[in-house]
Amino acid sequence: MAATELVSALLLFLLICSSDISSGEKTRRPRQPCKRLVLYFHDILYNGKNAQNATSAIVASPAWGDKTTLAVPNRFGDVVVFDDPITVDNNFRSAPVGRAQGFYLYDKKEILTAWFGFSFVFNSTRLKGAINFAGADDIMKNTRDLSVVGGTGDFFMTRGIATLMTDAFEDDRYFRLRVDVKLYECY
Amino acid sequence: MAATELVSALLLFLLICSSDISSGEKTRRPRQPCKRLVLYFHDILYNGKNAQNATSAIVASPAWGDKTTLAVPNRFGDVVVFDDPITVDNNFRSAPVGRAQGFYLYDKKEILTAWFGFSFVFNSTRLKGAINFAGADDIMKNTRDLSVVGGTGDFFMTRGIATLMTDAFEDDRYFRLRVDVKLYECY
Amino acid sequence: MAATELVSALLLFLLICSSDISSGEKTRRPRQPCKRLVLYFHDILYNGKNAQNATSAIVASPAWGDKTTLAVPNRFGDVVVFDDPITVDNNFRSAPVGRAQGFYLYDKKEILTAWFGFSFVFNSTRLKGAINFAGADDIMKNTRDLSVVGGTGDFFMTRGIATLMTDAFEDDRYFRLRVDVKLYECY
Repeated sequence: MAATELVSALLLFLLICSSDISSGEKTRRPRQPCKRLVLYFHDILYNGKNAQNATSAIVASPAWGDKTTLAVPNRFGDVVVFDDPITVDNNFRSAPVGRAQGFYLYDKKEILTAWFGFSFVFNSTRLKGAINFAGADDIMKNTRDLSVVGGTGDFFMTRGIATLMTDAFEDDRYFRLRVDVKLYECY
Repeated sequence: MAATELVSALLLFLLICSSDISSGEKTRRPRQPCKRLVLYFHDILYNGKNAQNATSAIVASPAWGDKTTLAVPNRFGDVVVFDDPITVDNNFRSAPVGRAQGFYLYDKKEILTAWFGFSFVFNSTRLKGAINFAGADDIMKNTRDLSVVGGTGDFFMTRGIATLMTDAFEDDRYFRLRVDVKLYECY
Repeated sequence: MAATELVSALLLFLLICSSDISSGEKTRRPRQPCKRLVLYFHDILYNGKNAQNATSAIVASPAWGDKTTLAVPNRFGDVVVFDDPITVDNNFRSAPVGRAQGFYLYDKKEILTAWFGFSFVFNSTRLKGAINFAGADDIMKNTRDLSVVGGTGDFFMTRGIATLMTDAFEDDRYFRLRVDVKLYECY
């Protein structure tokens, strides 16, 4: 097994190296974002009793799961739709500046990991438009990166990286994510 | 509450302003699309009785929903998979020029909003390839923008904005969207 | 019908042609990828009995489906969450170099087609980060292209095309995809 792993790792290493084509015009590394914003969003999962407060709900689950309890083990297969308030600080009671809308799903049996497809939607006098995100969330890591795959309105055609941190995680029912949005392509 | 809102708005405003880094090389604003196409797609939702005509079906719903009726309130939590005909005009009976394939989900309890992940798939002698879309659809607005996050074939590596208009909306069972696809990166 | 089709085709043709705006600065066609890697991933679907081996599970299905059997016809409406091993060759027993994580859904009644949203997640000493994919998979074709919509870590901000080939397809329970990842934007 160790030998197989070594061979695989070696093959991958060679494959990556050999594939790096030094092409000046297509390889570019921006040093700093052209725009950056740090925001928080708050997710309260529906558990069968909190319809008033809940901002998200399980809408799909594996054969062994249901829609008011997170699946065991590690929530694997649960799909959650959300409409979460976005705030500028970590206080759930701060006035929201927008909504985080879309879905996440838990996709690993052994540990907690998720996959996100969602948008930050802004609709105030100061800020209009949306930032669209997609990517894997390796929840157990301190920080992890998603892709900003596009934007509209004030974020027209943007791309970048969103660094997530779990700022709070309580009782299977509430979590708060800190999102450091670093945009490297601005129009 | 008003004070909290003001503070939040102010903080957000400062945050956005301070994050705008004037970097000539990364900030670019194209004036017009390099390619543009206006198309329509038609969605007939499965309701338990229209298997022949339906082009989409509810595949996931919240605890209080089911798969042949849209959830109350505002369809929140319903996930729909679709394979909808694309036409060049707003006539459902026009010959399709491609298929809109993917999913949408309804993600707000208070009003109708959706999140889309889908593709326009073309496979004719004149047009081959796909345009891939992602983003939030604020349905109650007259127009709203999604991101074109990529493309293949004749739309190799493209990016842009798709402006949606609800062209028809009938009986919870049929809607027609006008999609104005504006591509700002063409290869 | 033939006349309608002809008119639609003609309209689409004109529409595409007229929309091509010759803008030197925005039209660019890279000749070869700046990075390329060919990898395989392996999907074993949960069928009610293989909880140990399964790497994926049906989590949503249409009204006529269930979560341990693929829906008829053509799996339309089934949504599958997966955490599949990635290998550098087509041997399922090779040591994985990463995980393919996310979801696919089957979206056509007449033939097998799917829509994918997922990531290749790498976390070894040699390779860190993720490649994020989205797009339509026209399964019955020999090869088909998805979009690489972004990347993180070693694949920071990348974009490109992923060409899929079905390398094995067995018993409704196992498939193996060969993924030729061609990155045209590298940072």
